[in-house]
Amino acid sequence: MSKPRARQLGIPFDGQPGLNNAITDVDGVEVGYTTLISGPDIRTGVTILHPRGKADHDPVFAGWHVLNGNGEMTGAAWVEESGFLEGPIGLTNTHSVGAVRDAIIHWQIHHHALFQPWSCPVVAETADGWLSDMHGFHVQPEHVWSALQGACSGPVAEGSVGGGTGMICYEFKGGSGTASRRLPEKYGAYTVGVFAQANFGRRFQLTIAGVPVGQHLTDGAVFTSGENPFQEQGSLILVIATDAPLLPHQLKRVARRGALGMSRTGGMSGNGSGDIFLAFSTANPGAARPAEEHASLLALSNEQIDPLFWATIYATEEAIINAMVAAETMTGRDGLTVPAIPHEQLRDVLRSYNRLELSG
Amino acid sequence: MSKPRARQLGIPFDGQPGLNNAITDVDGVEVGYTTLISGPDIRTGVTILHPRGKADHDPVFAGWHVLNGNGEMTGAAWVEESGFLEGPIGLTNTHSVGAVRDAIIHWQIHHHALFQPWSCPVVAETADGWLSDMHGFHVQPEHVWSALQGACSGPVAEGSVGGGTGMICYEFKGGSGTASRRLPEKYGAYTVGVFAQANFGRRFQLTIAGVPVGQHLTDGAVFTSGENPFQEQGSLILVIATDAPLLPHQLKRVARRGALGMSRTGGMSGNGSGDIFLAFSTANPGAARPAEEHASLLALSNEQIDPLFWATIYATEEAIINAMVAAETMTGRDGLTVPAIPHEQLRDVLRSYNRLELSG
Amino acid sequence: MSKPRARQLGIPFDGQPGLNNAITDVDGVEVGYTTLISGPDIRTGVTILHPRGKADHDPVFAGWHVLNGNGEMTGAAWVEESGFLEGPIGLTNTHSVGAVRDAIIHWQIHHHALFQPWSCPVVAETADGWLSDMHGFHVQPEHVWSALQGACSGPVAEGSVGGGTGMICYEFKGGSGTASRRLPEKYGAYTVGVFAQANFGRRFQLTIAGVPVGQHLTDGAVFTSGENPFQEQGSLILVIATDAPLLPHQLKRVARRGALGMSRTGGMSGNGSGDIFLAFSTANPGAARPAEEHASLLALSNEQIDPLFWATIYATEEAIINAMVAAETMTGRDGLTVPAIPHEQLRDVLRSYNRLELSG
Amino acid sequence: MSKPRARQLGIPFDGQPGLNNAITDVDGVEVGYTTLISGPDIRTGVTILHPRGKADHDPVFAGWHVLNGNGEMTGAAWVEESGFLEGPIGLTNTHSVGAVRDAIIHWQIHHHALFQPWSCPVVAETADGWLSDMHGFHVQPEHVWSALQGACSGPVAEGSVGGGTGMICYEFKGGSGTASRRLPEKYGAYTVGVFAQANFGRRFQLTIAGVPVGQHLTDGAVFTSGENPFQEQGSLILVIATDAPLLPHQLKRVARRGALGMSRTGGMSGNGSGDIFLAFSTANPGAARPAEEHASLLALSNEQIDPLFWATIYATEEAIINAMVAAETMTGRDGLTVPAIPHEQLRDVLRSYNRLELSG
Repeated sequence: MSKPRARQLGIPFDGQPGLNNAITDVDGVEVGYTTLISGPDIRTGVTILHPRGKADHDPVFAGWHVLNGNGEMTGAAWVEESGFLEGPIGLTNTHSVGAVRDAIIHWQIHHHALFQPWSCPVVAETADGWLSDMHGFHVQPEHVWSALQGACSGPVAEGSVGGGTGMICYEFKGGSGTASRRLPEKYGAYTVGVFAQANFGRRFQLTIAGVPVGQHLTDGAVFTSGENPFQEQGSLILVIATDAPLLPHQLKRVARRGALGMSRTGGMSGNGSGDIFLAFSTANPGAARPAEEHASLLALSNEQIDPLFWATIYATEEAIINAMVAAETMTGRDGLTVPAIPHEQLRDVLRSYNRLELSG
Repeated sequence: MSKPRARQLGIPFDGQPGLNNAITDVDGVEVGYTTLISGPDIRTGVTILHPRGKADHDPVFAGWHVLNGNGEMTGAAWVEESGFLEGPIGLTNTHSVGAVRDAIIHWQIHHHALFQPWSCPVVAETADGWLSDMHGFHVQPEHVWSALQGACSGPVAEGSVGGGTGMICYEFKGGSGTASRRLPEKYGAYTVGVFAQANFGRRFQLTIAGVPVGQHLTDGAVFTSGENPFQEQGSLILVIATDAPLLPHQLKRVARRGALGMSRTGGMSGNGSGDIFLAFSTANPGAARPAEEHASLLALSNEQIDPLFWATIYATEEAIINAMVAAETMTGRDGLTVPAIPHEQLRDVLRSYNRLELSG
Repeated sequence: MSKPRARQLGIPFDGQPGLNNAITDVDGVEVGYTTLISGPDIRTGVTILHPRGKADHDPVFAGWHVLNGNGEMTGAAWVEESGFLEGPIGLTNTHSVGAVRDAIIHWQIHHHALFQPWSCPVVAETADGWLSDMHGFHVQPEHVWSALQGACSGPVAEGSVGGGTGMICYEFKGGSGTASRRLPEKYGAYTVGVFAQANFGRRFQLTIAGVPVGQHLTDGAVFTSGENPFQEQGSLILVIATDAPLLPHQLKRVARRGALGMSRTGGMSGNGSGDIFLAFSTANPGAARPAEEHASLLALSNEQIDPLFWATIYATEEAIINAMVAAETMTGRDGLTVPAIPHEQLRDVLRSYNRLELSG
Repeated sequence: MSKPRARQLGIPFDGQPGLNNAITDVDGVEVGYTTLISGPDIRTGVTILHPRGKADHDPVFAGWHVLNGNGEMTGAAWVEESGFLEGPIGLTNTHSVGAVRDAIIHWQIHHHALFQPWSCPVVAETADGWLSDMHGFHVQPEHVWSALQGACSGPVAEGSVGGGTGMICYEFKGGSGTASRRLPEKYGAYTVGVFAQANFGRRFQLTIAGVPVGQHLTDGAVFTSGENPFQEQGSLILVIATDAPLLPHQLKRVARRGALGMSRTGGMSGNGSGDIFLAFSTANPGAARPAEEHASLLALSNEQIDPLFWATIYATEEAIINAMVAAETMTGRDGLTVPAIPHEQLRDVLRSYNRLELSG
């Protein structure tokens, strides 16, 4: 990728990222996209995350949190009840959730990947109706299969790709972003990876590295002059992966930290926002259906969990900014143009607050 | 309807039903079905409930509760957050939730019925994979539209209809059932209506009017000899409507009482059960988007709420039994035959416990 | 104990009890009481449950559920967050919760039993203000210490003892009750024990073994003629113990089943009721602060959990009825007399419904 | 008060405060303190907040949220269930919660202020065991009564007073702080007031106005060299008041925003933190027990709620910093000295990041 990522612009972030600074730094996690950009008004897509890779259907421990529920995450009731996530995760636009959900089930049936006689997949969404014809239901089953099959580990594309294709963040172009943290050995050397579908925020709120960037970069704020100027129209979906051996109630705690990471970018989770966060752990394979009478598990003590909270918060912050930095200006439905955040101007603002990293 | 309903068999129930002993006794509520029975293995369908009728898209206050979350109710995060249900409710089989959800959105778009720029409809499910080819995704958008458009007030068909077509309850044929209660004047003369999609329970648990019926009527228990004999494989979805002016947090309280009504039929909410309950109130029209600066609301005091709890519990119990009494023996996928509960033998058992009503 | 327990009266219950049919059938659990009956209007006390016995301060995995929250269970936020219960449980009257809570902390300090530098003990309550001078704050620290120190395993006294001393259940005398179930070998031979402080219900609701007992035994219903005749004035606290290796989210599931057990006695969880249920597992010692880097745990599969749900439901039902059967008629504050449920009349009613066990 | 408050030091905050920049800017709210500082190791106290003033016992609509539950807020189950807060709120140290709770009940009885025949007051805590002899139970009923009776409107003392006396925040001296926001007329001219008992955070996390202050002001970080250096040992209690007519489920939404305000100061809600937030509205008097058959309520549309979220977030941030700025260096138990945040050095750091207000 020749495009710079946020830290390459000199934006300072806390903590040490993993190899690719991506959710795929957690072993097993694969990400797949189908991006649909065509004609004047199709700017959408679908993202798939396989917790253990597309070939391993063993459920993972999971937990979720809703910061503001103007959105959808199907399958959450069973995550909450069972403590497990039983299959791939889909992210798409609001009106394609059903299509993605049923297509995932179909794919699971085809691959003999149903864990129970039925499936209630986790599919979450953010709305792309400003740039895309969301009422047109353009995501089709074959797009979902393509993302399911094409998912891979390694570096992850960011910006206007997959489910994040038509998204808007802080009234700049948003989309898909990711980041990771690897804890020091003394904290267990665990990895936390975050994937964000970022579609939220009003311009004036945008904060980067603590700097009130949005109060300086005021051009092209697409919602500010709208008829309901104080209502946020967007959402943040977070998928948080870790290899630390956390139990479901601990993963719920991790998911709740997504709010703190979002806040570091200035987000206030408005009424119109569907801010829904899912965390899972790839540790403890076989826990859902143990070969023995009982599952034998490892679990991290609560007293060792703080560094994982920090890592989640740091990686969430960076994943959101990565989505914005990677996205390019897009023109879509009704000719609406949403600008990318201007890299050089951003650097100027950070520099004026003494917050630009020397290496940037 | 020439078929007897549960109370016509002489089964005693508490409380006074409304005119049709149905959820439609709550003014405005309409119920629509599409029933798909064809060939050897299609035994499914879709049910629609319009809270204020198909032509009135004004949101209703609502609340939900999950007793056991091995199931799906899309749209619940927004109900929880906003306190409102913004459109029709769909009930179907597990694997058709996505198709029903997206079709409802399409119908809302077509009828200019979106309350926000997007929609996250409430669609719930129970699994019909024993009697039907659930993996075949047979519910199509036109089936959903037909149920949306065909919904009406008045008497409501029960048993193997709509989303309940292929359901199994206490190892007898289950399906769709409904009941209502009208409170005495001194308690406000409110109506509570319950609609159940009943697909749960092991035979030995079945209790009717306090009588351990399932321990006597042991024939044809389809799961008892299965490979996982102690795990329930089913679900109960409840939709509870009232015209009492309850706020969202009070409706959540009402929804929680669904568990107590289910228990009166012997249910124990097994691991495999998706027991998810939604309650809404048709009072306070216009609350979601008031013409004035504020919504002017009426609200019932918590101290007046107990009779509504009782009514919910009683109507839930009767709705479940109504579903069973109305359903007829069905043969479906792989030749599986699920027997209807035998009416005369049921009466015999009740009589032997001195629990058959004289009028029955 | 020469007093008959419920099953000795011939009341049928499902499932097989443990040795003492008490929560102490779960190894380690100890119960202690201080009962305060003096003068015309002191009818109160305190109950202590030690999950692992008074000398073992190792936290236990735990989860809770609120069916109706008109009551108090201190310490619940930390149970929910951490998944652990860190010390003894106290049960008392509503207005003595603070005294009991602080006394438990003092006892923990004295015995070097604090798990963290602070303690937030679990203390729950039901109101005894009808029979006792609840506004008098009669439970003193020494009463709490006495119950803490005097707690033991083995048979457990029932009825008007400990925190349950002044309680009223279905407008009969209520109080403390317990029961247990031992699962068959094929289900893992686990034990579930339930302890109930039963102070809820309107007479007309009382159901025993499915029989509408309250509609026959109508004498002496103390609240029925009150000024707010349809509001329940009472509560049910349940403590559910098991030796099955359940994780915190699974124990929350178990706790939720308390509602289904309560319902089997006719309860409807009125607005005035504080129906709060706590479940813990004595398995997995050392999980809270493992000697190694990780805790090594055993966990039961969700797919094996149903028999534990059943056991919880059955033992809850019996614990409540045991509390009533053991309690004797009491006269207290303002001369109010609350009758014990009359054993012979109860047997007569059950017999008339063909529900009296032959052995009774 | 001659002591400067945070904004007087030139720290920039968003939004427009009310008259006293205090929770008492919400009409009716009164704050009372008893501060206990004596000998080498008593550094504690109690804070009381009366939602409608000490003489008005009419319940207020309320909602709560737990960000991290290593702490206590008694009475929360009834707030959650009923949607009402029925009396004064107490804040104290962890081990005095019981004493404060029971003393509030006693005060309510004495003033005929019980809303029900019993009371479950809301009392929350943070731990002061580093500076104070928390195991000594030094808060006595008379201290609680004194705070209850002495509570008043108008300016509110901050820093080491009341329940906040012995608190530590970001390893500087913490304590009690408050702030308010008044919305512009176009947003309804509502007031939001926040009261914080601030006892959380690791030094390296401290962020003020987006500036990583804690990475510069590193002296005297009391926990950093501890035996469990990565576990936070503290808590944040927030009480959020507004006169906006919000329903209980909306107040729960407001309470959840406390997390976003906390995050703006760098907080990450560690495992050892009891971060529990309560929000109430003084609108809609008489709602809990209406004179008529129904309560007639006003309610703000969800679509108008965003400015209240912003106000909550801004005021939370400022209340925490106010607590720190007001607190003075304290020496307590075992001679531990916790430094106040040094005002001039803080200004220097802000200035170096171009974040000091000119007026400062």
